[in-house]
Amino acid sequence: MSRAGATRPVGRRRGDPEATRAAILAAARRQFAEHGFDRATIRGIAADADVDPALTIHHFGSKRQLFVAAHALPIDPTDLLDRLAELPPSERGAALVRSYLGLTECDDSAALSLLRAAATNQDAARMLREFIGTAFLARADRLTDAPDAEVRVALVGAHLMGILYGRHVLRIEPLASSSVERLVALVGPTVQRYLDGAEIGS
Amino acid sequence: MSRAGATRPVGRRRGDPEATRAAILAAARRQFAEHGFDRATIRGIAADADVDPALTIHHFGSKRQLFVAAHALPIDPTDLLDRLAELPPSERGAALVRSYLGLTECDDSAALSLLRAAATNQDAARMLREFIGTAFLARADRLTDAPDAEVRVALVGAHLMGILYGRHVLRIEPLASSSVERLVALVGPTVQRYLDGAEIGS
Repeated sequence: MSRAGATRPVGRRRGDPEATRAAILAAARRQFAEHGFDRATIRGIAADADVDPALTIHHFGSKRQLFVAAHALPIDPTDLLDRLAELPPSERGAALVRSYLGLTECDDSAALSLLRAAATNQDAARMLREFIGTAFLARADRLTDAPDAEVRVALVGAHLMGILYGRHVLRIEPLASSSVERLVALVGPTVQRYLDGAEIGS
Repeated sequence: MSRAGATRPVGRRRGDPEATRAAILAAARRQFAEHGFDRATIRGIAADADVDPALTIHHFGSKRQLFVAAHALPIDPTDLLDRLAELPPSERGAALVRSYLGLTECDDSAALSLLRAAATNQDAARMLREFIGTAFLARADRLTDAPDAEVRVALVGAHLMGILYGRHVLRIEPLASSSVERLVALVGPTVQRYLDGAEIGS
C-alpha cells in the first residue's frame, strides 16, 4: 500500500500560507467525511491538499486538532476536558454545562451543524461517532473515577446533545428561552450525579 | 372564510373504509407538514382527503390522535402520561424511561423518523415542536407538582431525545449496546430528580 521512499513536494502552495491552510482544511473535511475520523490520515489529507504531511502537522498539530479546525469547533474537546479535570470533582458538572451551553449558544454553532448532518447522513454520523469516541469517551476517566466511566460520560453527552436539539432545532419552550444560568442550576446537578457514580438506591 | 351551510359529501370514498382511512392519513401527513400541528385542522384534512369531517373524527378521534396514527407512533403520548400519572410519584421516572426505551428500541422507530426529519427541515421541526407542546408540555403538571413543571418535563424530553440520538443515530458505545434495564437504572433517577423538583443545593 505504501509507496516506498515517496515524499511529496510542497508543490504549488509554497508561496501562500493562507491558501495552504485553506487547502488543508478543505481536504480534511473531504477526507473525514469520506473515511470517518478513525481511518482518515494526516498523510491522506496532505496528499489530497497537495502539500507535505510535515507542513500539515506544522499548521494544525494532531489529527484531532485538524478535525477541530476543519469543522470550526470553538474549542478542542481535549483542552476542555483538561480544564475540567483540574477542578475539584464536585464542581465539574456545573462547569461542563456552563461551558457547553456557552459554546453552543448561537443558532448556527459548529456543534449544531455536525448534529444536523449526522441525523440524516450515515457517513457524517460515523465521523462524529468516531471523533466523540476519541476526543471524549476514550478520556472519560479524566472526568470521573466511576468504574463505568464511559457509559456515564456518554449519557452526559446524550443529555447535552438533547438540550442542543431541544433549544436550537425544535426550539421547545420554555427550554429555548431559559438562561444559561437557569439551565446550569437545573442540569449541572444531573451531570454531577452521573460523574459521581450515583445510581438507583444511592 | 367559512362557506355558510357547506357540508361535504362523503364522495367517492364511501364504499371502501380502508381506502378512506389511507386517504385521511395521507392528507393528515400533508396538512401537518404544511401547516404545523397547531394550525392544521380536522376540516382541512378532511377536505384534502375528500371526505366528511365527521367521518375523519369517527375513524381517528381528535386531531392529536390523528397525528399519532398518521406518523405511526406506537402510543398516544396522552395515554402514556395518563398511565404514568396513576403511578406513585416516586415510580414515574423509571417507568417513563422504561416505556420510552421500549417504544424506540428499533433503528427505524417513528420517533426516530420525526427526529431525523426535524433536524434538517424547519417545517418538520415546527410540526414536532407544536405536537410536543400539546401532547406533553401542556400536560406537564400531570407528571410533577413542581412550579416550573414545563421546563422540567422539557429537560426530561431533551435527555430522552439525546439518548435516542446517541443510541440510534450516532450509535455511540457503550450507550448503543447498553440494555434497557441498565439505562433505566442510570437514567431513571435522573428523570425522577427532574420530576421531584430537586435543584442545586437540594
